Amino acid sequence: MIEAIKVAILGAGTVGSQVTRLLIEQKTELAQRVGAPLEVIGVAVRDPKRSRHGVPAELLTTDAAGLVSKADIVVEVMGGIAPAKDLIMQAISAGASVVTANKALLAREGSELVLAAEAAGVDLYFEASVAGAIPLLRPIRESLAGDKVNRVMGIVNGTTNYILSKMESDHAAYEDVLAEAQQLGYAEADPTADVEGHDAAAKAAILASLAFHTKVTIDDVYCEGISNVSAEDVAAAESMGFVIKLLAVAERLGTDAIVVRVHPTMVPKSHPLANVRDAFNAVFIEAESAGELMFFGRGAGGAPTASAVLGDVVAAARNRVTGGIGPGDSSYADLKILDVSHARTRYYIHIKVADRPGVLAKIASVFAENDVSIQVLHQDGHGSDASLIIRTHKATDAALAQTLSDLTKLDVVDSVIGVMRVEGERGE
Amino acid sequence: MIEAIKVAILGAGTVGSQVTRLLIEQKTELAQRVGAPLEVIGVAVRDPKRSRHGVPAELLTTDAAGLVSKADIVVEVMGGIAPAKDLIMQAISAGASVVTANKALLAREGSELVLAAEAAGVDLYFEASVAGAIPLLRPIRESLAGDKVNRVMGIVNGTTNYILSKMESDHAAYEDVLAEAQQLGYAEADPTADVEGHDAAAKAAILASLAFHTKVTIDDVYCEGISNVSAEDVAAAESMGFVIKLLAVAERLGTDAIVVRVHPTMVPKSHPLANVRDAFNAVFIEAESAGELMFFGRGAGGAPTASAVLGDVVAAARNRVTGGIGPGDSSYADLKILDVSHARTRYYIHIKVADRPGVLAKIASVFAENDVSIQVLHQDGHGSDASLIIRTHKATDAALAQTLSDLTKLDVVDSVIGVMRVEGERGE
Repeated sequence: MIEAIKVAILGAGTVGSQVTRLLIEQKTELAQRVGAPLEVIGVAVRDPKRSRHGVPAELLTTDAAGLVSKADIVVEVMGGIAPAKDLIMQAISAGASVVTANKALLAREGSELVLAAEAAGVDLYFEASVAGAIPLLRPIRESLAGDKVNRVMGIVNGTTNYILSKMESDHAAYEDVLAEAQQLGYAEADPTADVEGHDAAAKAAILASLAFHTKVTIDDVYCEGISNVSAEDVAAAESMGFVIKLLAVAERLGTDAIVVRVHPTMVPKSHPLANVRDAFNAVFIEAESAGELMFFGRGAGGAPTASAVLGDVVAAARNRVTGGIGPGDSSYADLKILDVSHARTRYYIHIKVADRPGVLAKIASVFAENDVSIQVLHQDGHGSDASLIIRTHKATDAALAQTLSDLTKLDVVDSVIGVMRVEGERGE
Repeated sequence: MIEAIKVAILGAGTVGSQVTRLLIEQKTELAQRVGAPLEVIGVAVRDPKRSRHGVPAELLTTDAAGLVSKADIVVEVMGGIAPAKDLIMQAISAGASVVTANKALLAREGSELVLAAEAAGVDLYFEASVAGAIPLLRPIRESLAGDKVNRVMGIVNGTTNYILSKMESDHAAYEDVLAEAQQLGYAEADPTADVEGHDAAAKAAILASLAFHTKVTIDDVYCEGISNVSAEDVAAAESMGFVIKLLAVAERLGTDAIVVRVHPTMVPKSHPLANVRDAFNAVFIEAESAGELMFFGRGAGGAPTASAVLGDVVAAARNRVTGGIGPGDSSYADLKILDVSHARTRYYIHIKVADRPGVLAKIASVFAENDVSIQVLHQDGHGSDASLIIRTHKATDAALAQTLSDLTKLDVVDSVIGVMRVEGERGE
């Protein structure tokens, strides 16, 4: 008889309890896929008295460390840095494989965990940490292993995508939509991590690390949230045939550097990412040989996340049965990580201007002096309402900042109403 | 020093020569990813005198069997059943891992190859056989290994998608667009395999085998091509807010059966598959826990296919280094494969009718007698031009066939102008 593979679950929240339930319910099928039975030996929780849907009470324990010491595979779905990190390190040094959905931990200490797992010769899988159920990390690590990724661009936060979709469809203000989302449970009482882009930045760091074989942490990611996106920005985007999305972008600059950034972005309606609505996630990948790929699905929720965790558990278990090990998250390429001032993007700029002859010439010359080329210019309103909507060709963040600074010094410029990056068009 | 892994390439067409070139050019990077160098020991061709872009002449050989006998990994990109199958079987019994892009072979003899590879304990990978560069088989096999797939539905043939996109955008007839596609090299001189759906059916068989852990061959797939799709069908679809796509659909029926089918299908414009145009491919997967997933990208072409092949080569090579083996394509679930008469879909039906009172009542009663429920009915034209466009709720193929047969017997029905399945709406 083949010995069972012992699985320890750390955390019995929405994901932990679903994973436990599925491991028990699908015992027979999973054993066929793995080549050995999977046995849940315990579920570590803080309060064993709280009822957990579908988790047998006899599996609950408060002794997480004791549980880890007996496991072949440790599934960490408790979240947070402590004690999750110590328990994962304990598992790795004891020779257990680890499956985690902990993006906060991976985005800060991922590289340490990866090196420890490599040294110990065990698997460390974390598909569920980015874009929930969407198979994304495995395709990047494995399917594209013989290709060269040039760009990863995606919608990786469902809450902000829901808010932006609602602002667009209902012509509503940010504050009103956020309040509604909080009432419906789509946004947290303290929405900071989502709306300020921190959650997306953590995922961007994890994606960039894998795609560019380089150690990227959340501190390397330029991060701008959606709390300053106004109904006027959304309307201006609409009038140009664009929508606003919070995008995570990681891209190669030249041959040996990358930039990783998260910010609200105008995307043309014809781009596949423009049609990704509500709480859905989608990630676009551009690779040298494969060309453009897109992965789309549910980015959060107990069941989708549990599906991703289980996929990783099966892979780790199979590796234990066959004696192999999955591909590591190596950082051999070690590319330079440049700050956002080096990024080159198009920009949308909305300026309130004086309504008199010669204004356009003055403004155009400021753009020209800073080497920022204007792609589209649209004059709007009259008198005290006169404004200019400008979309530029690609320019560096630094050049744009200087242009804006020079513009505000012009006597014909009243104020800059809106500035936003534009992505998803071809060419320069 | 770590010993090099010996790679033999069978075939030096577009894909074979690209794979060879990339293996040589990216030697250093690939060695880092694999943990050992990959050495191309030869490229088997029929005519060694023909020049092959980027393939060093000294690698070319006509002795395919001799080459296979010396290899650790055999990459079969020659296509066709013979001698590809014998060479793959030779490689497997000699203990080499195999990477193939040969959908025709896999759709007919896949199960025999898979069993042989399992028995020999070697890897058999074939990501490139379906949807080119789109990572699809690996996510189904591995990422969804702990989930239950209920439905796979996709656009897996670029030629037909190009033709249908053009018919739609240019309001053109099938014959004219096909002739243009042939001139441009988007369709073969003999387009049968593409336009009659055989290529899509082969891919559907491969996808269904993996998704449902069941042995499905191309002979199990119901197959209907696009050569009968008329400009009128396209216009009727347009008028209802639909587009026509050639879809491959594999779905679970009840708990222990599946149906696999390929046919022209009306899809609502709001569905993500409706926006997949020209030669792009996309596959939608519905899984119990993961929910809806979509994978999008280039389905054909030398570079995209080479990317998929290389990903498989890296995976197989890594497994040789670490001593593991990838998940097999097991058929343990062994579900019943029902014929298409059991499939339940919505239908579009276009009937030319007499323009006189009572027609509608007679027609409606035929639908009712056959238990086919009408969802939308639209009367068009007058006098000798009078017609009815009907969309039904879900019904079995058998019920629809009986309805059509009964309709043609009515004296008020002149002829059935068009019938097509409809997919992509929710509910019954």
